[in-house]
Amino acid sequence: MLHEDRLFSADPGVRAMSRQLYAAVKDLPLVSPHGHTDPAWYALNEPFPDPAQLFVVPDHYVFRMLYSQGIPLEKLGVPSADGSPVETDGRAIWRLFAAHYHLFRGTPTRMWLDQAFADLFGLAGRLSADNADDTYDTIAEHLQREDYRPRALFERFNLEVIATTESPLDPLEHHRTIQESGWSGKVITAYRPDAVIDPEDERFSSNIDAFSDLTGEDCRTLEGYLAAHRKRRAFFKAMGATASDHGHPTARTADLSDAEKRSLFDRILHQAAKGEVVPEDAELFRAQMLTEMARMSLEDGLVLQIHPGAHRNHNGPLFRRFGRDKGADIPTPTNYVDALKPLLSAFGNEPDLRIIMFTLDETTYARELAPLAGHYPCLFLGPAWWFFDAPEGMKRYRQLTAETAGFYNTVGFNDDTRAFPSIPARHDVARRIDCGFLAELVCDHRLDEDEAYEVARDLAYGLAKRAYNL
Amino acid sequence: MLHEDRLFSADPGVRAMSRQLYAAVKDLPLVSPHGHTDPAWYALNEPFPDPAQLFVVPDHYVFRMLYSQGIPLEKLGVPSADGSPVETDGRAIWRLFAAHYHLFRGTPTRMWLDQAFADLFGLAGRLSADNADDTYDTIAEHLQREDYRPRALFERFNLEVIATTESPLDPLEHHRTIQESGWSGKVITAYRPDAVIDPEDERFSSNIDAFSDLTGEDCRTLEGYLAAHRKRRAFFKAMGATASDHGHPTARTADLSDAEKRSLFDRILHQAAKGEVVPEDAELFRAQMLTEMARMSLEDGLVLQIHPGAHRNHNGPLFRRFGRDKGADIPTPTNYVDALKPLLSAFGNEPDLRIIMFTLDETTYARELAPLAGHYPCLFLGPAWWFFDAPEGMKRYRQLTAETAGFYNTVGFNDDTRAFPSIPARHDVARRIDCGFLAELVCDHRLDEDEAYEVARDLAYGLAKRAYNL
Amino acid sequence: MLHEDRLFSADPGVRAMSRQLYAAVKDLPLVSPHGHTDPAWYALNEPFPDPAQLFVVPDHYVFRMLYSQGIPLEKLGVPSADGSPVETDGRAIWRLFAAHYHLFRGTPTRMWLDQAFADLFGLAGRLSADNADDTYDTIAEHLQREDYRPRALFERFNLEVIATTESPLDPLEHHRTIQESGWSGKVITAYRPDAVIDPEDERFSSNIDAFSDLTGEDCRTLEGYLAAHRKRRAFFKAMGATASDHGHPTARTADLSDAEKRSLFDRILHQAAKGEVVPEDAELFRAQMLTEMARMSLEDGLVLQIHPGAHRNHNGPLFRRFGRDKGADIPTPTNYVDALKPLLSAFGNEPDLRIIMFTLDETTYARELAPLAGHYPCLFLGPAWWFFDAPEGMKRYRQLTAETAGFYNTVGFNDDTRAFPSIPARHDVARRIDCGFLAELVCDHRLDEDEAYEVARDLAYGLAKRAYNL
Repeated sequence: MLHEDRLFSADPGVRAMSRQLYAAVKDLPLVSPHGHTDPAWYALNEPFPDPAQLFVVPDHYVFRMLYSQGIPLEKLGVPSADGSPVETDGRAIWRLFAAHYHLFRGTPTRMWLDQAFADLFGLAGRLSADNADDTYDTIAEHLQREDYRPRALFERFNLEVIATTESPLDPLEHHRTIQESGWSGKVITAYRPDAVIDPEDERFSSNIDAFSDLTGEDCRTLEGYLAAHRKRRAFFKAMGATASDHGHPTARTADLSDAEKRSLFDRILHQAAKGEVVPEDAELFRAQMLTEMARMSLEDGLVLQIHPGAHRNHNGPLFRRFGRDKGADIPTPTNYVDALKPLLSAFGNEPDLRIIMFTLDETTYARELAPLAGHYPCLFLGPAWWFFDAPEGMKRYRQLTAETAGFYNTVGFNDDTRAFPSIPARHDVARRIDCGFLAELVCDHRLDEDEAYEVARDLAYGLAKRAYNL
Repeated sequence: MLHEDRLFSADPGVRAMSRQLYAAVKDLPLVSPHGHTDPAWYALNEPFPDPAQLFVVPDHYVFRMLYSQGIPLEKLGVPSADGSPVETDGRAIWRLFAAHYHLFRGTPTRMWLDQAFADLFGLAGRLSADNADDTYDTIAEHLQREDYRPRALFERFNLEVIATTESPLDPLEHHRTIQESGWSGKVITAYRPDAVIDPEDERFSSNIDAFSDLTGEDCRTLEGYLAAHRKRRAFFKAMGATASDHGHPTARTADLSDAEKRSLFDRILHQAAKGEVVPEDAELFRAQMLTEMARMSLEDGLVLQIHPGAHRNHNGPLFRRFGRDKGADIPTPTNYVDALKPLLSAFGNEPDLRIIMFTLDETTYARELAPLAGHYPCLFLGPAWWFFDAPEGMKRYRQLTAETAGFYNTVGFNDDTRAFPSIPARHDVARRIDCGFLAELVCDHRLDEDEAYEVARDLAYGLAKRAYNL
Repeated sequence: MLHEDRLFSADPGVRAMSRQLYAAVKDLPLVSPHGHTDPAWYALNEPFPDPAQLFVVPDHYVFRMLYSQGIPLEKLGVPSADGSPVETDGRAIWRLFAAHYHLFRGTPTRMWLDQAFADLFGLAGRLSADNADDTYDTIAEHLQREDYRPRALFERFNLEVIATTESPLDPLEHHRTIQESGWSGKVITAYRPDAVIDPEDERFSSNIDAFSDLTGEDCRTLEGYLAAHRKRRAFFKAMGATASDHGHPTARTADLSDAEKRSLFDRILHQAAKGEVVPEDAELFRAQMLTEMARMSLEDGLVLQIHPGAHRNHNGPLFRRFGRDKGADIPTPTNYVDALKPLLSAFGNEPDLRIIMFTLDETTYARELAPLAGHYPCLFLGPAWWFFDAPEGMKRYRQLTAETAGFYNTVGFNDDTRAFPSIPARHDVARRIDCGFLAELVCDHRLDEDEAYEVARDLAYGLAKRAYNL
């Protein structure tokens, strides 16, 4: 089912060069510095429940496409937030999924699934209504085996390290369990403080209280609040974290005076307590906090990741029935050149700061992000992200960034996924596309062959390790 | 003059696969669910007057390019709005056009014209100053033949159905004539109510009066105005319409309360009567009306087409001398993610609603439109439109949308043209490009060959029929 | 080191066609109608000092990339504005550059450098730490030779004409020296009045005084100020200029009444004198001045070039230490469709006006610029500029503009550089990419072969001469 030359150019010369480059990187260990797998999997090492729970129910790429063609989320087993009943029969979900597998034609989801089905479960044919029961049974049987438990899969995937992301309020118990278990797998956390930084999160006010309780700081004062961050960052770092991560609606940063900061902080807490957060203040607070995080990065060395530009939960009615992360996050036009200036004016020339920028707005690759990353020492470009973590998206990423930022202002690939079985396929797609891009440069004589091998290894492995201090 | 492999990849493998896919779709009937041909042609079935009147005078793609290189519209026979004299000698216009045919190198206009010249009129050489008179004579002779009258051409083009667009104020007499004529050709209308929805149209106020007269409703009350829309939609539907169409400056929608709607409506009528329309109110009224149209679509089943994003009549002096549609419509940056939210929050999850979105801002394909269409059940992407209805534009459309929205959230091709002889060529270009895109996916092993045939048929024929209920 | 087929498609058919087209244009003289070389080079004809001063210190493409990877500008010999000491040893700078040559992989800088190293200095191997001293010595030796002085290189480069850009305050003494020297090389100036048009330039107020002194006009009155422009334009024209050039933050234009203009002018002078320029007024003044320049172009025939869209000196701390043009200019989203309307409404249909628009925002190529240039007689598109003067950037330029604007609303290539030795390579890259683009059109049968040769010559040579009246 999987062609060994998939994603390589049809041109024989370019294909041959792509193959050679790929051969040199395909077996390198996977470095996954940014993802969303559940640390409980590795801590508890229990079997995955069933094929639908593994492949359909938790994967918003899968159910958003099915939903877009009129299939209710209830029938796909997506848990509701309002208590309405949803399908619980894995086989029924799987049949529905299989009968609509044609919807994924042309999408990366299709490639990831095909590869997992073939490589991991030995499926021979394309998923369809006809083979839905057979494939369900085959996968279900495998999932009961010892060598299909999370730790075994981690090892089978050749993962050198994987990062999860946790809230500062998370006690990191699963990570502790993993570390104390004696298992050799390297699972680290990342500091994702959105829950205590975003005043528009409906739990913000109570989160601030929890933040105080957890840290022993008075988080209703600016000093206490910042000290709490420092404490939790130190704790996360002690638990292996090398990076923080920030999912903001925009890339806006601010560099307020101490008095302005204090006044803003008091205002925000007051508004949040009343449940009447002023959007402009919320935006300014998030903006200022990116600069505060950069300041702390300079102290503790955590790499600062900024993931801006999603309009979250765009589908209001669906959000009210099913909650967050149900496929209704839509990218928005994102400005970087003005938005990042306050932070960059403060710390942009610091040799010890490292900021990794992601985008959901491809129009900024060539116009803003490559020129910024090709100038500021602290700034690096994250890989093609989310909707653009796909063959065409990755090609555009290189075509639009390499000429201004080169390769060494980028940070290699990360899979950013909670879909565990897709991880090898995602890295494989990235390696194939990057090798194909380099092969084109070699074949039209923009790059020497020996250099292409060196770059290919860096894109597949070296840059991620260096960028994230792994 | 026409190479059988035109627009296919130079790579032999991809070209062979493209050829095979194209062979399977090239003879499928043409479905033209959105266009601007004149129903009078099919109703009266009179000969087209002369080559210049067929190919130059009415085609804004043609005369805008000539105008951009300094040729006055007067010399091209474009009728003036202010009564200034224009060239009426078809041969003189044709000579001017032929002498500047090199300007169209690299444009789709050139491909459409070449194909019409060759396939329809048997011209053997490229148009030039040297053969201007010969080609004029050849075409003119053909146009006098019975088998070059509109109905005969419709049949020759293998058109299964063509839609025109009419104002609610149009009595649809030509459509009635066609239907009563016993001719087998299927020509339907579409409901295009911009003239009674856009307060910034200088005829808006008198159009509202005409709307009252025509429907017997008091269109100076909100209830009467909405009832008038319902009546005319029902009439259009009875005359074959399956869709409405809305050409707005932006994609903005609104979902006001009843009191707000009523107040806005009264304000708009008052302003329009005085000739002092407030732009913000006009924008809000158009926005609200899209939501009203969606509500009516849920009742009557008409598909809702939204064509936003053109700055119309950008060239003020030219507009004053020649009127609308003279090539001075310029695309503008268009936002969808915020603009569509009010409508989508109201009706976005309705399984029986179908909205087809077009864009003149390609930056939104991957960033906004594919994610929206890949989530909302009601939302579908129209094909590459207007300036992007061209080989490179179509390739980008697929490259930028397929990975997130797949193929089944798109609606096939429509030609959107008033240039009758270009219709077969426009569909042919679309079929070739789509087959080429699918061939690439097959050749780099992203799609199986049997699937590619199925998708190719859907893109060429099936999706348009299903999307527009034809 | 240089492959003869570099930048051509790997496909044998397309490559063969590219080669043939390229063979027909590669030896055409270079026309460089817009650039930033120093007229003192041609006037004084002194040897270039050393390899680092030729290739590293003045080239912001080179040092911005090195800076982005943590190399301080001081170590690269970039002169400081605040008097801090910088490296002066050319060999030390060269070693640092050579050791980091891998950073330029995938960038056009690498191609330009490689070609200059090979063609001009006969270097055989790729620059690296290992051969840093050898390459330094070889280049340094060449630079002492008579035939490596500026005039000899100009002739070796086969430059038919090169334009520099000067401020209205420049006495053009070097141009006079060149003209009086009897040397046959054609070096012309261009009128670049930003220094007396941009109120946000910190020297604006004193520049206005200097403008008065130089012209004998009272530039503190609007009439005197405009008369001074007319005088200097006439002088520049007498010294060979055929164009003016305007580097504005945005493309905004305005067409104010006489009273508004006068009031704005007085306000601006007053604000500038106090050092408190209101940004909105400054923007409006620049906008109005573009329209004034267009009016003067109609009188004196100078071609109007507009280069908008850079956020200059984005890195505040670096700007304070090193001054302007240190690689911290970042493109911004740029609007053309609204911004240009006032100017175009005033003069857009004038057959004798020629405006050449550039952009740093590629999203406007297809959405705004090609439709505008494909309609307005006065408007032409400048080539892919600055960050986009690179193989992928140039391909996108043609793919995104040709289908709407064709080839004849573009103006050929210009190198826009102060990096003298890169000039032949820059034109060579452009010729290769354009020939490759045309070869694709021939191979997929969108363009006939005889036409492709004609277009190739126009893109390489003819269009630049015609657009700039050279």
